[in-house]
Amino acid sequence: MTPLNIDDPRNRPTGSTRERQFVLTLGCPDDTGIVARLATFIAGHGGLITEAAYFADPQNNWFFTRQAIRAESMDLSIEQLREAFLPVAQELGPRVQWQLSDTAVLKKVVLLVSREGHCLHDLLGRVAENDYPMEVVAVVGNHENLAYIAENHGVPFHLVPFPKDAVGKRRAFEELAEIVNGYEPDAIVLARFMQVLPPDFCEMWAGKVLNIHHSFLPSFMGARPYHQAHKRGVKLIGATCHYATPDLDDGPIIEQDVIRVTHKDSPEEMQRLGRDAEKRVLARGLRYHLEDRVLVYGNRTVVFD
Amino acid sequence: MTPLNIDDPRNRPTGSTRERQFVLTLGCPDDTGIVARLATFIAGHGGLITEAAYFADPQNNWFFTRQAIRAESMDLSIEQLREAFLPVAQELGPRVQWQLSDTAVLKKVVLLVSREGHCLHDLLGRVAENDYPMEVVAVVGNHENLAYIAENHGVPFHLVPFPKDAVGKRRAFEELAEIVNGYEPDAIVLARFMQVLPPDFCEMWAGKVLNIHHSFLPSFMGARPYHQAHKRGVKLIGATCHYATPDLDDGPIIEQDVIRVTHKDSPEEMQRLGRDAEKRVLARGLRYHLEDRVLVYGNRTVVFD
Amino acid sequence: MTPLNIDDPRNRPTGSTRERQFVLTLGCPDDTGIVARLATFIAGHGGLITEAAYFADPQNNWFFTRQAIRAESMDLSIEQLREAFLPVAQELGPRVQWQLSDTAVLKKVVLLVSREGHCLHDLLGRVAENDYPMEVVAVVGNHENLAYIAENHGVPFHLVPFPKDAVGKRRAFEELAEIVNGYEPDAIVLARFMQVLPPDFCEMWAGKVLNIHHSFLPSFMGARPYHQAHKRGVKLIGATCHYATPDLDDGPIIEQDVIRVTHKDSPEEMQRLGRDAEKRVLARGLRYHLEDRVLVYGNRTVVFD
Amino acid sequence: MTPLNIDDPRNRPTGSTRERQFVLTLGCPDDTGIVARLATFIAGHGGLITEAAYFADPQNNWFFTRQAIRAESMDLSIEQLREAFLPVAQELGPRVQWQLSDTAVLKKVVLLVSREGHCLHDLLGRVAENDYPMEVVAVVGNHENLAYIAENHGVPFHLVPFPKDAVGKRRAFEELAEIVNGYEPDAIVLARFMQVLPPDFCEMWAGKVLNIHHSFLPSFMGARPYHQAHKRGVKLIGATCHYATPDLDDGPIIEQDVIRVTHKDSPEEMQRLGRDAEKRVLARGLRYHLEDRVLVYGNRTVVFD
Repeated sequence: MTPLNIDDPRNRPTGSTRERQFVLTLGCPDDTGIVARLATFIAGHGGLITEAAYFADPQNNWFFTRQAIRAESMDLSIEQLREAFLPVAQELGPRVQWQLSDTAVLKKVVLLVSREGHCLHDLLGRVAENDYPMEVVAVVGNHENLAYIAENHGVPFHLVPFPKDAVGKRRAFEELAEIVNGYEPDAIVLARFMQVLPPDFCEMWAGKVLNIHHSFLPSFMGARPYHQAHKRGVKLIGATCHYATPDLDDGPIIEQDVIRVTHKDSPEEMQRLGRDAEKRVLARGLRYHLEDRVLVYGNRTVVFD
Repeated sequence: MTPLNIDDPRNRPTGSTRERQFVLTLGCPDDTGIVARLATFIAGHGGLITEAAYFADPQNNWFFTRQAIRAESMDLSIEQLREAFLPVAQELGPRVQWQLSDTAVLKKVVLLVSREGHCLHDLLGRVAENDYPMEVVAVVGNHENLAYIAENHGVPFHLVPFPKDAVGKRRAFEELAEIVNGYEPDAIVLARFMQVLPPDFCEMWAGKVLNIHHSFLPSFMGARPYHQAHKRGVKLIGATCHYATPDLDDGPIIEQDVIRVTHKDSPEEMQRLGRDAEKRVLARGLRYHLEDRVLVYGNRTVVFD
Repeated sequence: MTPLNIDDPRNRPTGSTRERQFVLTLGCPDDTGIVARLATFIAGHGGLITEAAYFADPQNNWFFTRQAIRAESMDLSIEQLREAFLPVAQELGPRVQWQLSDTAVLKKVVLLVSREGHCLHDLLGRVAENDYPMEVVAVVGNHENLAYIAENHGVPFHLVPFPKDAVGKRRAFEELAEIVNGYEPDAIVLARFMQVLPPDFCEMWAGKVLNIHHSFLPSFMGARPYHQAHKRGVKLIGATCHYATPDLDDGPIIEQDVIRVTHKDSPEEMQRLGRDAEKRVLARGLRYHLEDRVLVYGNRTVVFD
Repeated sequence: MTPLNIDDPRNRPTGSTRERQFVLTLGCPDDTGIVARLATFIAGHGGLITEAAYFADPQNNWFFTRQAIRAESMDLSIEQLREAFLPVAQELGPRVQWQLSDTAVLKKVVLLVSREGHCLHDLLGRVAENDYPMEVVAVVGNHENLAYIAENHGVPFHLVPFPKDAVGKRRAFEELAEIVNGYEPDAIVLARFMQVLPPDFCEMWAGKVLNIHHSFLPSFMGARPYHQAHKRGVKLIGATCHYATPDLDDGPIIEQDVIRVTHKDSPEEMQRLGRDAEKRVLARGLRYHLEDRVLVYGNRTVVFD
């Protein structure tokens, strides 16, 4: 993780109602005294904890925490803090994983889209209302029809058409990867992007690619989930925000929600109703990710909401 | 359907707040003028419609309706009404299916249970509060431990142990069928009865056996759904009330609901939380059935709630 | 109600998945045979009913219905249908109220806004996705900051600043009324418009002005409901879509919903979370209105969803 | 707080799936280093934290925490732990409030009821299923009709009739107080007990008396909330679990929930539907209380769920 430049004009605080915080997330094998060590370290630098949560998973004997510290209470910059924390982390053993971030630094996000624009409208509308902790640095689409939305919000739009043939598709993904990589994003969001990502892309950006699937997973994986739902006659339909992995629709789930349907709702009507669930679930799941509230272990997530 | 005797002391009204109604449910191929015919027939006998709903399924071109008529507004008894309706039904073609019931006649219900008593407690508690339109005529269990609940509510309890071997199991099902058949119930409820019903039993009582499955079907069919849900890391767990068919967990769905879980919830905790969803979904689904609000077609249901 | 011109290019169908319908809504004193009369009339003109609902209110002895008829099944245009229905309506007595509309004719909507743009983004995004049965003919705002959203969607924006003094405010309302009246809208939506409408405006447009209030009414009427909610320590916050009447926040409720909050949520955080509920509730309530699903009686509504 | 006797046969663990925990809850003025002190103390006695949550309220500058420690990881009994913690608490200043409890010790609960039994059925059913961390030591009712439920569950029932006149009512409350006080309960639950408690009783048992109000407070305070809700035409009805205070329906809220209603639902139907919300909200709110998850400050609560 490269040091961040607070003087960058992009790095404004997320909104006037939120105070600036340093956020520590950490996972390691569980043991007595971890909280004491972390808390003593934070207090030793004057840190006032404004929000904290722990979780110890008894099955894997693993410890997870997220701690939000009032930035102005600390006597260190985020870079100094990271350096100071290194020896503490090392004491927690070789398998520790941690991250320290500064809420004053907006996360950079690339959105991938196809033809349906409801999630794109929703996320850019939230940003426009200064209500969402991210900067959308680019929108990449395989159709032209949503370009105007990005442009209306002053966001660069890249068109990468996806041919049907394998070679053409491979080349399109190479082009897409090049564009995405160039932005060094903190999150890549498949905002109803209807192409299956190649495994190497998923692996390169593991834990940073969020997908919104239009069903309540693991129900109705794969194509046309609303039609599957209608055929099965379910009384609730749902949406799932999950990290993309090479196994389609099988990555760690961040957030889910459902809405009620009835016998009156055709597959098309479910599609329409479901869009509301998709927007809501993606917006919530992505927010958890952007606020460093999600810790992945295996195929599961800890979400400190 | 044999005529019902309103003088039977069992046939008291469902509660003081509900007026007595005759309820017509009907399904037939869709055509122009069906509503007109039905409504003209009802009006012709002075019937005041207090609640009515229609649904025409465009895929199958099938028409469904449920009409609740204030009983005291009619100049006919329910038996006379059925007779008078016969020619109207015949005009709607050979495939019409219909039923006329009287809310003053309590539906008879047999509950099948195993070891877990939460649904049994819940349903009998509702009946005790005079809050539920049924008479529980018997509880059948394959373990003794819930007998006391039935007895506390003055309901006969039948113990039918289920051995592990195929022959013993077959005999147990024969005994169970004999008991159930003897009650001529309007509904048989698998209130967390953990045995798979034999196909002939399902077929004999098709459309009258309700099961509560402890997952959001079609997710996590089969055994130990909460453990499956925990393993997959879902953020919502659910329950499904459906008609039992020979295909396990695959019958027409009547009602579903979900509750939120987090990374903190172990499979056992999910089990505990899920019981609330199971009770609620079973109580709602069964009520729809008892109030003649559910019409089955293929593997789907119309629920006029 | 003036006849509508189907050849108007504006009057395109609401989306490819919806067939064109004629929608009859009607309320009158309850009596035997109303359904029969209506259904016989519809069938007499070949009308195939695709969705219908009735409700008879026992307290006021009033009958309400909404009937959706497949347009192409009828042998009349909507104008002819209205004319043909007149004598039927007259038979139902002098207090009958009814309306016949054609889903092929998009409803015209004027949106009133102040500074917060989340509802405006949401509604215009839905229209842009061809997902919502309305044409936004104008946005009127008392601040300039949301003009760009309307312009991005090709909708005229009218700036009407509201001074603090009574005279200035009165004049501003006169200007606003003139603009709105000029559009002859089917609905006027207060999409977080923070000015209290004068009584004569409410009365002139009675049953056509929809407001979104940012609380679960009747809790927290008036100003700063999220601050009131925080102070009272509630665990759910809500939003209410209702028809505006001269009595502030007291009009007939169309739709409500809630979201969960915790002790961690400051009033500002509640504001942020609540925006999701506001958008959802307004979108649903307005859709009910646009699809002629709402019938008002006294201070209550029948919503045939 | 008197020391608890672990050898008491009543003090069995809450269920096989839950490990025994020592639970620390604490509130004090916020300051740097509190977490470090607490965690260092716990770790110093070998304590493994299995669940922990903090909250610092910026408005009042107050710090709240709940920490669950695996009992078997500690080298102290709960009594020794309390003693050892005393000096730590004293360092946190004179305004600190704290409690240390042992989940192996079942909380004692007295239930107060009137005529409606749904909450009583529900809570006793949960206990019977070994699913709820409490022992119901007594049920007190002002009518005889629910006595049989308590008796079926082997719980003593006390009848205390409440006359209409002020003197009779005062005497009845004295009798009730004497009965309740004799049980030294950890919680007193007004399970639809329809009498307003006298202020001195509320104060004596402050923070231990839980009420379930059958509306979404602060909407529809006082009598007949479902009738009020029907009259106002709301689209959701709710229930609120709160601590009883001398100000009726105005105490700190622990939990709330809502269910959807429509124009079809009469006040009586709302009553019936609402019972499900009441049962659910009371069961959840009471569980939070019994698991020491609720910290009260002023008229608000912190609920560490």
